[in-house]
Amino acid sequence: MGELRARHILGISYLDRDEISFILDTAVSMKEILERPIKKVPPLRGKTIVNLFFEPSTRTKLSFELAAKRLSADTVGISASTSSVVKGETLIDTARNIEAMKPDIIVMRHSMSGAPHLISRYVRSSVINAGDGTNEHPSQALLDLLTVRERFGRLEGLNITIIGDIAHSRVAHSDILAFTKMGARVTVCGPATMMPPAPDILGARVCLDLRDAVRDADVVMALRIQKERLGQLSPFPSEREYARQFGLSRAVVPHLKKDAIIMHPGPINRGVEMTPEIADAVNSVILEQVTNGVAIRMALFTLILADVQKLG
Amino acid sequence: MGELRARHILGISYLDRDEISFILDTAVSMKEILERPIKKVPPLRGKTIVNLFFEPSTRTKLSFELAAKRLSADTVGISASTSSVVKGETLIDTARNIEAMKPDIIVMRHSMSGAPHLISRYVRSSVINAGDGTNEHPSQALLDLLTVRERFGRLEGLNITIIGDIAHSRVAHSDILAFTKMGARVTVCGPATMMPPAPDILGARVCLDLRDAVRDADVVMALRIQKERLGQLSPFPSEREYARQFGLSRAVVPHLKKDAIIMHPGPINRGVEMTPEIADAVNSVILEQVTNGVAIRMALFTLILADVQKLG
Amino acid sequence: MGELRARHILGISYLDRDEISFILDTAVSMKEILERPIKKVPPLRGKTIVNLFFEPSTRTKLSFELAAKRLSADTVGISASTSSVVKGETLIDTARNIEAMKPDIIVMRHSMSGAPHLISRYVRSSVINAGDGTNEHPSQALLDLLTVRERFGRLEGLNITIIGDIAHSRVAHSDILAFTKMGARVTVCGPATMMPPAPDILGARVCLDLRDAVRDADVVMALRIQKERLGQLSPFPSEREYARQFGLSRAVVPHLKKDAIIMHPGPINRGVEMTPEIADAVNSVILEQVTNGVAIRMALFTLILADVQKLG
Repeated sequence: MGELRARHILGISYLDRDEISFILDTAVSMKEILERPIKKVPPLRGKTIVNLFFEPSTRTKLSFELAAKRLSADTVGISASTSSVVKGETLIDTARNIEAMKPDIIVMRHSMSGAPHLISRYVRSSVINAGDGTNEHPSQALLDLLTVRERFGRLEGLNITIIGDIAHSRVAHSDILAFTKMGARVTVCGPATMMPPAPDILGARVCLDLRDAVRDADVVMALRIQKERLGQLSPFPSEREYARQFGLSRAVVPHLKKDAIIMHPGPINRGVEMTPEIADAVNSVILEQVTNGVAIRMALFTLILADVQKLG
Repeated sequence: MGELRARHILGISYLDRDEISFILDTAVSMKEILERPIKKVPPLRGKTIVNLFFEPSTRTKLSFELAAKRLSADTVGISASTSSVVKGETLIDTARNIEAMKPDIIVMRHSMSGAPHLISRYVRSSVINAGDGTNEHPSQALLDLLTVRERFGRLEGLNITIIGDIAHSRVAHSDILAFTKMGARVTVCGPATMMPPAPDILGARVCLDLRDAVRDADVVMALRIQKERLGQLSPFPSEREYARQFGLSRAVVPHLKKDAIIMHPGPINRGVEMTPEIADAVNSVILEQVTNGVAIRMALFTLILADVQKLG
Repeated sequence: MGELRARHILGISYLDRDEISFILDTAVSMKEILERPIKKVPPLRGKTIVNLFFEPSTRTKLSFELAAKRLSADTVGISASTSSVVKGETLIDTARNIEAMKPDIIVMRHSMSGAPHLISRYVRSSVINAGDGTNEHPSQALLDLLTVRERFGRLEGLNITIIGDIAHSRVAHSDILAFTKMGARVTVCGPATMMPPAPDILGARVCLDLRDAVRDADVVMALRIQKERLGQLSPFPSEREYARQFGLSRAVVPHLKKDAIIMHPGPINRGVEMTPEIADAVNSVILEQVTNGVAIRMALFTLILADVQKLG
């Protein structure tokens, strides 16, 4: 059996290869629960999970909430718009106040990189980073690993190509760390203005031409164009121009390996990152990623809080 | 025993008379649960119901949520304002993504007529239409049937008068279909500008004079004036003018049958659709409609998902 | 054993000394539950609690929600922004409609003083006032009593100093009533423009000088400066001026009794009502207040609804 030494899940950078494998193995058994007619098991009965989201989110929040409920935990959600943060309270005060109500896990998304790390030093609850600024989104990388491992039976030696705004993407950051740690090779691709400075590429290969970048790829992952996070200075002339140069479309297919899979963290801007025919193609595993997201979050909750053996 | 053949509840138009009677009979036993000190039974334990509301709603959403919880289902709510739909995702993508998280039922409200039908073709979960544009609101019509049947012991042969914006009302549409299907006669009344073109009246009689319209009615149902749905071109000069011509007030009482009942889907614009003394009169069953709404939704959930016999 | 005669918790003014003591004693056993690894007990299984908040609130709503869930009640939340109140429904109609869905308790916050009293006359459910205008916030006063009693072992004979906008604060109002009723002496302090007219001071002593006000205090409670509630006519020149005259800082410490405790209902405007070093000082019980808030709300729910003996 494996072991998860961390009390918090703040980033892939804090997990070693064995811990990651153990999380993935646990998620496999969680996924089996999701295929049952009754998708609910009792191990977290009586535990309380607070979803503290300072950025709008539908699917990640829903995924964490469903994961918690299927383990019989109670959940409460706090979103920034209704939060007393609007009354000028500091982040640390918010965290301490929530902590004083005795939750077991705080799942947190914040636009500021490092916010979950900061509050983890002030609370006794476990903190799961559900996305912090441009830093990390570890549960997304874990579900991506699970999805790839399911398809190929392994991670070691695979070629992973990630396309998009690598410099500003916490998904890219966590995925590069995660796939590299598990022995895969990562190539990043996108406009030069979206590539991070060299020391931040974390051992990934940069390739500015899409066709070159996908040629040897077992996995082609397109990132969402996060217009809302880019501010006024757009790093590319237009969505249409981006789609023409870096969007996945029928024109790219001849350059792909036959068994390459297509991934996207969602929500897709159809016609920008990829055409509908690519998104819905038989080798697209995008919806599998969503299902695996619930399984990974169930695994994280369980490993942090519960006795795995109790699972029914 | 009856049977519900439909996997989805998209509209009254898809239900036959036997199915409707079976739903009403089931709702009667659900209502009995609502009168107990402990209003909770276990048949949907472990099932997950997603409330996907693209239009603001308090009472319908609350009614579905309470119905689910009283059957021990887990519920998660997604409202348009927080939804990734704001990020430009298509409706079908949203539905598929939610589906990938393995819910059992998706309850959906959308401003676009046919939206629940569209997503029902893309998901394996059951879809319940909680109101789609100007098309249908089937659970509202079912609760109206239940309320009338409770009072009169039957539906066959009753005269039902519906007053208001018939052309734009999904409640009117579903109610005309439902009452007609069960053997009642429906009269619709309101400003001529609010009457639908002839083929859309579905066999209802049109009567532009309020006193004529209510004279033989066993049931007088006033619809909410949905100002928000009418746009700039108001079909009547003013609320006050509407109230004077089509509002229910003391002046109408002498024209009513002695045992006629007053209905309204809520929320009431007091002083517009009816005066407070009519809304609160002894023959008003408006709050009974609200209670019956919970019972009908419990019945729909149960018939779609559970073994009725398991009810405690 | 004690007894709670009230069916509603509308204000401290409706509770007598014995009832308050009984609530505090019950909260002590609830707090013990909050220290267990599994913080959930079954007495309210199958009961439904509606949180009806017409004013934004994070922590009070969260506290009531967690209290309900830890007693195994189901909760549904309705906030003003999504409520049909925006469609023009009256408060009484909203209450009656919620009532028709058969909840067991309605927890209500409203900007209008007396709103919970109004609806309590129209519903059969129990109503708990979670803050009404400038009138009362009884569960806050009860948690403050619990926090003080825990520290000093008694309430009788203690000196309580409350600093801030006494005239507009429902917390101040409930606390003055509560501490006085339990035999403590209350002093209020703040700018003269924030003191209520004499008959509203409820037997508290007014002291306009901070150092005089805290000199004999066993408890120093700073209220939140509610800028949003003051309107255009600010009763003091600036936050900075307020902080200089009435903020708690290191300069005040020499004037405090050695074992005096510091309280604040939260969220703190750090640097206004008190400096960070005071908020985080060893004699600050501000986070204990938050924990006690959950315990008090569990006690109120239990005493209203359940058989205390059933607690596991």
